[in-house]
Amino acid sequence: MKAITLLGSTGSIGTQTLDIVSHHPDQFRIVGLAAGNNVEMLAAQIRQFRPKIAAIYSEEKLPILTEAIKDLDPQPILLAGNAGVIEVARYGDAETVVTGIVGCAGLLPTIAAIEAGKDIALANKETLIAGGPVVLPLVEKHGVKLLPADSEHSAIFQCLQGVPKGGLRRILLTASGGAFRDWDVEKLAEVTVADALKHPNWSMGRKITVDSATLMNKGLEVIEAHFLFGLNYEDIEIVIHPQSIIHSLIELQDTSVLAQLGWPDMRLPLLYALSWPDRIYTNWERLDLVKAGNLTFREPDHQKYPCMQLAYSAGRAGGSMPAVLNAANEQAVALFLEEKIQFLDIPKCIEFVCDRHQNDNCANPSLDDILAADKWARQEVLTATKKLATPSPITSLR
Amino acid sequence: MKAITLLGSTGSIGTQTLDIVSHHPDQFRIVGLAAGNNVEMLAAQIRQFRPKIAAIYSEEKLPILTEAIKDLDPQPILLAGNAGVIEVARYGDAETVVTGIVGCAGLLPTIAAIEAGKDIALANKETLIAGGPVVLPLVEKHGVKLLPADSEHSAIFQCLQGVPKGGLRRILLTASGGAFRDWDVEKLAEVTVADALKHPNWSMGRKITVDSATLMNKGLEVIEAHFLFGLNYEDIEIVIHPQSIIHSLIELQDTSVLAQLGWPDMRLPLLYALSWPDRIYTNWERLDLVKAGNLTFREPDHQKYPCMQLAYSAGRAGGSMPAVLNAANEQAVALFLEEKIQFLDIPKCIEFVCDRHQNDNCANPSLDDILAADKWARQEVLTATKKLATPSPITSLR
Repeated sequence: MKAITLLGSTGSIGTQTLDIVSHHPDQFRIVGLAAGNNVEMLAAQIRQFRPKIAAIYSEEKLPILTEAIKDLDPQPILLAGNAGVIEVARYGDAETVVTGIVGCAGLLPTIAAIEAGKDIALANKETLIAGGPVVLPLVEKHGVKLLPADSEHSAIFQCLQGVPKGGLRRILLTASGGAFRDWDVEKLAEVTVADALKHPNWSMGRKITVDSATLMNKGLEVIEAHFLFGLNYEDIEIVIHPQSIIHSLIELQDTSVLAQLGWPDMRLPLLYALSWPDRIYTNWERLDLVKAGNLTFREPDHQKYPCMQLAYSAGRAGGSMPAVLNAANEQAVALFLEEKIQFLDIPKCIEFVCDRHQNDNCANPSLDDILAADKWARQEVLTATKKLATPSPITSLR
Repeated sequence: MKAITLLGSTGSIGTQTLDIVSHHPDQFRIVGLAAGNNVEMLAAQIRQFRPKIAAIYSEEKLPILTEAIKDLDPQPILLAGNAGVIEVARYGDAETVVTGIVGCAGLLPTIAAIEAGKDIALANKETLIAGGPVVLPLVEKHGVKLLPADSEHSAIFQCLQGVPKGGLRRILLTASGGAFRDWDVEKLAEVTVADALKHPNWSMGRKITVDSATLMNKGLEVIEAHFLFGLNYEDIEIVIHPQSIIHSLIELQDTSVLAQLGWPDMRLPLLYALSWPDRIYTNWERLDLVKAGNLTFREPDHQKYPCMQLAYSAGRAGGSMPAVLNAANEQAVALFLEEKIQFLDIPKCIEFVCDRHQNDNCANPSLDDILAADKWARQEVLTATKKLATPSPITSLR
C-alpha cells in the first residue's frame, strides 16, 4: 500500500489521480490533499479519501472547509494559504507527492516535498522548466525520484527502466502536430481561438491545447527531457506522429530503439508514476494495433512551428531563460485566448521577451531569481504586444 | 571484456558474431570455436581470433585443421566430433556461449554449456522448441541466463528489462507476412520455390525464408516465447507488420505497451545477447522513422497460414509434440525446396505427422525421447507425402 499526497487535488491531474486511487484501494492511500480554491470539491474529497491533512490555498475559504467536514471523526489537520500547502507537501509518511499545481505556484511545495525525502510524481512542468537549476541539485541531495506523470516523459521513463547508465543515446519525443498539423503555413494568420482549441487526439485544457497547436508544448517537453534524462539538446528530437499511439521513443548506444505505446489516456502515465516500479493490473481498454491503424511520422516544420526553435534556444541558453520562455508563452497564450493578439503573435511575443532577457540571464539562478524572471516575463509580454501593434517592429521581430 | 565461446562459427550466426567481436576487440574475446565441416574457414577464424580451444564436428577433417594452423604459437587445443564440440561448449572461462549450431545437433552442446554455468546466447531454436522440457529445468538449476539472439525474442527481452516480475501480460510477435503476404490464398497452390524464396525484408537462408512464407517461423517463435517468457499461449499473439521495423511488443498489466524498433538487421539482437546487460556503442545506421515510412498492422489470416495454428496446437500439447512439429516442418520444407511436394503440402504433411504423434506424446520427455521423436517425425513426413500423392487422403487431412 503506497502512501500518497496530492497537491492540486481539484484540478485535472488531481481528480484523475483520485479516480485511480479510488479504483485501487488496496494499492494506494491518501495522506494529504491540497487544493486552490474549489472548497466544495476538496471537502467531498476529504470525505471520500480521509486524508490526515488537507489545505486550501485561498485562506478565506478555510472556515467553509472546516464547517463542511465538521462531522468527520477523526478530523484531518486543516490548513490554508501557501504555508498550508507547503505543510501538506512535507507532512507525514507519504512516499510520493503528486504535484498537480499549475504554474510557479507549484515550485515551493514541490521543493518542500523533496526536502522531506518524498518522491515526486511530476505533473507541474515549472518544477523543471523554470526550477530545474534549483530543483535538480535538491533531488540529488535528498536521493528522491522524479517520476514523470505526463505521457511523453513517462514513455521515456518506462523505456529507460532496464537501460544501464550511459546506455541512452537519443530521445525522440512524438508530437501529434496539434490542431493545425494539416493546415498550410500561410493560413495560420487567420486562425481563430475556436480553431486552436480543436485538438485531434487528446482532450485537455485550453492553454495546453493551444500549446499543442504551436508545438510549444513539445518545445517545453524538450527542456523537461533535458533536465529529467540528462541528454544534450542535440540528442533530443521531435517527430510528428499524428496518431498519438507511440508516446515517445529512446535510442540506445547500439542503435536499438525502444518505444512506449498506448491509446491516448492521461491515466496511464499517472498510474505508473504512482505504482512505479510496479505494474498494476487495470481493466482499461487494451491497445489494438490493427484498430489503431497506420502509424505515420513526419519531420516537424520549423517554419510552421517557430515555438520549437524558441524552446531549443531557451533551453540551450539555460539559467533563467527557460523560465522566461515558459512565462512569456503562458501570458501570450492567455492574450490569444482573450482574442487580444493573433495566433502568429504568440511566437513573436515570446521571441521579443526572450531577446530582452538575454543580457539579464543568470547562469545559476536562485529560486528568487527564477520567480522574478517569471514575473518579469509575463509583464514584458504586454510591452511586446504594444510593439507588435505597430507595423514596423513586427517585421524586425521575425 | 567478456569471454565468449561460439558454436557453429562458420554459419550465418557464427560469422556475424565474429564480425561483431572483430569490431569490438576491447569488449569481447573468443575462448572457443566449434564448426561443422568448413575446415578452411575455421582455420582462418582460429588464426584471427586465437581461441584457447576449437573443434571440428567432421572428425576426418581434424588432420587438415591441425596442419592448417600448425605455425600458431601458442597452439589451441584441437578436438573433433560431437564430443569435441561438447568439450568446447563447456571449456574454460567463457561467460557466454553462442549456440549457432542448426538443428537438434545443438542440443547436447547447449546442455553441456548450461551445466558448466555459462549463459547462452540462444540462436539454436531447437534448444527450446524441442528441448524446452529438458533445458528449462537445467537453466533454473544452474542459474544461467538464456539470452535470445534472434530479432523478435530479443525485442521482447529488451522491452522486459525494466519490467518487474508478474508485470508481463501479453506478447505481440510481429511478422512480416513473408513472400506471400500480398497473394490471394487461392493462388498459393501455384507457388514455386523461387516465389517462396523472395523475402520482402530480411536476407536469410532458404529454409527460414520458406518458414517466413508459411508463417511457421512465427508459430515456432510463439513456442519459444512461451518457454522463454513463461506466458500461456492465449497471451502470445501474432500481428502482421509488413515493414519489419517494430520487432515485437509486450503489453504490461496496466495496459502500457513497450516495443523495440530498428532497421531489419540480425546483428543488433546478436550484439545485445553478447553485451547484455550493457549497451555498446555502434556506428550502425540509426533508425529514421520518417524514412521508415508508415508502420502498418494486420490480423494474420489463419486460412492462408495454417502453420500458425499447427504451432499453437503443438505448443499447447507440449511434451515432445513441438519437437515433432519442428522436425516435420524441416523435412517438409526440404522436400518443397527439392520440388518434391507443393507449397500447400507443407502444412498438410506437418498436420499428418503431428496427428500420428498424439497418442505417443509424452508429457515429460527425456532428451532421448525428444531426439527419437525428432527422428521419427522426419521419417514420418515421407509417409505423409505418399498419402498426399493419392487424392482422397489429402481431403481428409485438411
